[in-house]
Amino acid sequence: MSTSHASHPDRLLPADPGTRDIARRLLAHVEDLPIISPHGHLEAQMFVDDEPFTNPTELLISPDHYLTRVLHSVGYELSELGVGGHECDPREAWRIFCTNWPLYTGTATGYWVEQEFEHVFGINPDRISGENADELYDELDEILKRPDFRPRALADTFNLEVLATTDDPLDDLQAHKALADDASFTPRVLPTFRPDAYTKFYNAHFADNVEKLIDLHGGGKTGYEGYLEALRDRRQFFKEAGGTSTDHGTHDAETTPLDAAEAAALFDKGRNGTWTREEAQAFEANMTFRMAEMAQDDGLVMTLHPGSYRNHSTSTFEKYGADVGHDIPFQMEYTNALQPLLSTFGENKDFNFVIFTMDETTFSREIAPLAGYYPAVYAGAPWWFIDEIDAMNRFRQYTTGTTGFSRYSGFIDDTRAYCSIPARHNTSRRVEANYLARLVAEHRITEDRAAEIIVDLIDASPRRVFKL
Amino acid sequence: MSTSHASHPDRLLPADPGTRDIARRLLAHVEDLPIISPHGHLEAQMFVDDEPFTNPTELLISPDHYLTRVLHSVGYELSELGVGGHECDPREAWRIFCTNWPLYTGTATGYWVEQEFEHVFGINPDRISGENADELYDELDEILKRPDFRPRALADTFNLEVLATTDDPLDDLQAHKALADDASFTPRVLPTFRPDAYTKFYNAHFADNVEKLIDLHGGGKTGYEGYLEALRDRRQFFKEAGGTSTDHGTHDAETTPLDAAEAAALFDKGRNGTWTREEAQAFEANMTFRMAEMAQDDGLVMTLHPGSYRNHSTSTFEKYGADVGHDIPFQMEYTNALQPLLSTFGENKDFNFVIFTMDETTFSREIAPLAGYYPAVYAGAPWWFIDEIDAMNRFRQYTTGTTGFSRYSGFIDDTRAYCSIPARHNTSRRVEANYLARLVAEHRITEDRAAEIIVDLIDASPRRVFKL
Amino acid sequence: MSTSHASHPDRLLPADPGTRDIARRLLAHVEDLPIISPHGHLEAQMFVDDEPFTNPTELLISPDHYLTRVLHSVGYELSELGVGGHECDPREAWRIFCTNWPLYTGTATGYWVEQEFEHVFGINPDRISGENADELYDELDEILKRPDFRPRALADTFNLEVLATTDDPLDDLQAHKALADDASFTPRVLPTFRPDAYTKFYNAHFADNVEKLIDLHGGGKTGYEGYLEALRDRRQFFKEAGGTSTDHGTHDAETTPLDAAEAAALFDKGRNGTWTREEAQAFEANMTFRMAEMAQDDGLVMTLHPGSYRNHSTSTFEKYGADVGHDIPFQMEYTNALQPLLSTFGENKDFNFVIFTMDETTFSREIAPLAGYYPAVYAGAPWWFIDEIDAMNRFRQYTTGTTGFSRYSGFIDDTRAYCSIPARHNTSRRVEANYLARLVAEHRITEDRAAEIIVDLIDASPRRVFKL
Repeated sequence: MSTSHASHPDRLLPADPGTRDIARRLLAHVEDLPIISPHGHLEAQMFVDDEPFTNPTELLISPDHYLTRVLHSVGYELSELGVGGHECDPREAWRIFCTNWPLYTGTATGYWVEQEFEHVFGINPDRISGENADELYDELDEILKRPDFRPRALADTFNLEVLATTDDPLDDLQAHKALADDASFTPRVLPTFRPDAYTKFYNAHFADNVEKLIDLHGGGKTGYEGYLEALRDRRQFFKEAGGTSTDHGTHDAETTPLDAAEAAALFDKGRNGTWTREEAQAFEANMTFRMAEMAQDDGLVMTLHPGSYRNHSTSTFEKYGADVGHDIPFQMEYTNALQPLLSTFGENKDFNFVIFTMDETTFSREIAPLAGYYPAVYAGAPWWFIDEIDAMNRFRQYTTGTTGFSRYSGFIDDTRAYCSIPARHNTSRRVEANYLARLVAEHRITEDRAAEIIVDLIDASPRRVFKL
Repeated sequence: MSTSHASHPDRLLPADPGTRDIARRLLAHVEDLPIISPHGHLEAQMFVDDEPFTNPTELLISPDHYLTRVLHSVGYELSELGVGGHECDPREAWRIFCTNWPLYTGTATGYWVEQEFEHVFGINPDRISGENADELYDELDEILKRPDFRPRALADTFNLEVLATTDDPLDDLQAHKALADDASFTPRVLPTFRPDAYTKFYNAHFADNVEKLIDLHGGGKTGYEGYLEALRDRRQFFKEAGGTSTDHGTHDAETTPLDAAEAAALFDKGRNGTWTREEAQAFEANMTFRMAEMAQDDGLVMTLHPGSYRNHSTSTFEKYGADVGHDIPFQMEYTNALQPLLSTFGENKDFNFVIFTMDETTFSREIAPLAGYYPAVYAGAPWWFIDEIDAMNRFRQYTTGTTGFSRYSGFIDDTRAYCSIPARHNTSRRVEANYLARLVAEHRITEDRAAEIIVDLIDASPRRVFKL
Repeated sequence: MSTSHASHPDRLLPADPGTRDIARRLLAHVEDLPIISPHGHLEAQMFVDDEPFTNPTELLISPDHYLTRVLHSVGYELSELGVGGHECDPREAWRIFCTNWPLYTGTATGYWVEQEFEHVFGINPDRISGENADELYDELDEILKRPDFRPRALADTFNLEVLATTDDPLDDLQAHKALADDASFTPRVLPTFRPDAYTKFYNAHFADNVEKLIDLHGGGKTGYEGYLEALRDRRQFFKEAGGTSTDHGTHDAETTPLDAAEAAALFDKGRNGTWTREEAQAFEANMTFRMAEMAQDDGLVMTLHPGSYRNHSTSTFEKYGADVGHDIPFQMEYTNALQPLLSTFGENKDFNFVIFTMDETTFSREIAPLAGYYPAVYAGAPWWFIDEIDAMNRFRQYTTGTTGFSRYSGFIDDTRAYCSIPARHNTSRRVEANYLARLVAEHRITEDRAAEIIVDLIDASPRRVFKL
């Protein structure tokens, strides 16, 4: 093992010696707890197949848009990095990454990669450089062939207890069922119902998607009625396969419901491609409301992830498609937008509605006040661009005074980068210890209480909020 | 007295030992100064009657929506807590509060309650628990019967020098006059003119309110003209009763004036209920402008408190009415909205216009730049959801670099919770000491100057800005 | 020399002793590097003439709206301070400033003035007071007569290597050429092409400006076509005179292009004064796009400075004109607004597009994600109201986790106050040392890497981004 600062026991803890001592003790309560990951983007099939990872580039670079976007920003083509299914020379892509490693200093991604090298692969991250690129590639390539680096073995190494995937409503969930039936595999891998491609007229496949959905699961009904019926049916199917939540990557947070006739008329426009932007938004808002309505019956937790301008660069989208790093956050508004939904369902104690944001301005202004009043509302963890060290700390600073610690979703890693999972969760634990230690050092809360809270945040919160 | 951390001399001060020493010394300059509370929601009549408080629940729980909303968020009915005039078993409500005490850890409310227990009632807050609920209820009940716990006696204990109430324009202010005439009562209890229920068409009583207003004080004039006359008249009446400010809880910060004919036409629509949302907003904006205009003549300080979505939960409003914890902040905009008002009155050195916000994003972007230019504008203290420790510190961090310390309103407690007043003011004093100590420790200002500033912030600012 | 805290070696460095030691060492790497100022508002002619400064007020007070706005906020007339060409008694203005010196405590301006007194004039800033005003005036007046306080000599003292001015497209740039041709003058003084007065219909001189522009440089073409031709021609002229960038003080960040016919029709409306607000904005957005388009050909760096409500106080504008301290920031939106421009030109590695903001909420939400993806985009330094100590630190805290340090514009001083330049750049260096030291102390980056980064931020970044 290396002696790099990547394994320094005080990494991410406060610099002030007195506060750091407190933080160390708080961290000790949670550092070894199992990982609960109630929202992410891995494939369940990966654990069914349990194949070795192909090579370092395919495992660590190509699928991780946090990482490739940085290289793109300094001028590399995404195709050189194997993004979007483009073929690349994996060793060459690896050299690009290693040569440009200094770009990642100070970034969350850089920190996670260091942690992966140190704690997953046992390689000192200080060795990452253009000079060492080939040597590291070969070492990692060897490691990935070892049986203890297959997906299932890593799940044990990572101490993974729960992992939720994100799935299409028409997914047959066979992989999830196989894993649930396999007594030799202990982590719970749960599906998440994600109907975005069935609620947005502007999704290129909307018409085909809903046609197939209604045909297969509409229970003989047609049009909007069949569509609702089919969604209800698939939610139930996900629930029976162990799913506990539905996820909604909406454009904004609008939730104004439409009456059935109006919604049906829009739905038809959506299907035949004669909709306007306003109509698409109105229908999406209505569907967010309808999903909440269905949750009143089936009890599935509802998570809302709005506020990303998807596929911002037209030229990138044409070449590489979606989810390759050019989604950009924009201003979000929750107070007005969520009022219809919350006024109708917000008082239901059995409805768990988790609001995520990438717009930090909403932490103290909207998220905390909403979560501190409505029994249904939980403040989602900082997410995507803001699941980094300083932003996670700010989340606490901006929400705790109003709402305390009890209305928190628990950390989510939301990742496609399997090997970054331990680093991400460990980061969250250290940030919580850092924040709580300050409150103790300022004599705002006692250390005993802080110890209870950190265990609750890391372990009990996600179980409670995601009904695990 | 207890030995709990609630009386730790360094509570809320910085953890770094060197900075903490500076903060201690700065705090010593202001910790014992009298309390000046130029904006709040107590009733003057309470001091006239000087009756003992009924029981711990009626004093500490039912009227404090900061506190009841937290219990509501975990599933209690507001009726169980005696909110909105609902009858409840006060002992049972007290048990709910005590059992759920851990929810308040880290919140401003939790900190204030601890301080009240420790410093007002002499009870160690560490004893608060479900187990001790009945015992504490009985102890407090005894204490509340003591003569030194009646409203007037507490005012002395609290070292209360000035307390402003918030009053309806038609209030006869007899209570204020009685107190002013009572030589045995030393605090100044001042009325504040709050005409919201007379400027918002969407207030359920608008038509009745303005009819009564015009009839009684319109000087024989009718319609919009009588309305303006009556408002002018009542402002004068408040001023004569010792009032120094008017308060405006507007929806947004819009201030575009209407010409007299247009305003009169809208006013008539408001009275007969034929208005649109846009017309209501336009009239409210016009009235914010008109209130500023009247202030040019009568010299009353004008405070603006916009940005709260009132009665967000329709179902709660139907059951419990207004001001019960479900008002939620939303995005605020001042630069464009205030331009008409400030371009007309902003250069008047005798006009004091205090801008409050719950949208922290406006601190550095709008509030500080406006307060640092216009002689009329003062930056209001962090308010409501953001009058908590970290947010108050952020207020300084976001405004000082642009505007320094001279354009600050002074702290306001804005409270309905009488016994929390000392804790709230003491919190503010500690936060100022904390912030200033950092500037000193970073060699940005001298400690001598910091000592002058903290006294100015706590004592001179509110006197100067509120013309006390 | 004085012993005031203004020369304390640890000023602006962190209070925690361990972190401060690191910061000291990091600062040592950059404190003496030459000053590179790629954006500001000095006049090149000042260095050609090299005349002594007239008096302390004309040098330090009248032209510095950061400073005069504070005095205005407490009731002084801008005319008393010699603002906007108004004649004032310079000694009397100086007395006003000195008497009100305590108002500046904690402000960026106050800090800069202290540094100027201490490090430029060798006067202990603790002496600034109403009592000492005349004495200080006389001392400074003497100093300003010395040859080593002429503009050129100061440039040497300041270790000024590059200074960009901001210039009208029709400027003949003779001053810049004279300086470039003068072997005895070593700093590079570069022009910046700033076409705002030629793109905004609402500029009072728009029609005259564009007429003159087209007549002189339209290459015989007329209307919109001649206008574009002339702009292209002048950009080339600036480039040949050493300019490397164009600057755009737009209202907002909109960039939707218009087709040629539509743009031409609007242009004609702009010239004959028959435009609406919406049309003016649409034309301005189109021109932001066209400027980016021209930059693809000539390679000039493009800087965008939107988000200021210019001339907010109508009465001030009537008396004093523009740029006198009553421009107020407002909410900014980049993600949607820049999409047309970035989707077209954002992937060009040779196009440098620097986005500035005064709306801090965009740091983590929009600026960092954009700069971390598009090869063209650089995150501009905190600017104007937020180029102060705490806000500069926040800039790092809000952008580094997403984007690291490589997509930064370098510090810009943007100043009209010549003698504040060293203080401003030194402040930036101390803030970077402060921020980086914390990352080192928290074991997030190594001190060796931090040392590389700080040199890159201060020296290499502005050279690279501004193509110096």
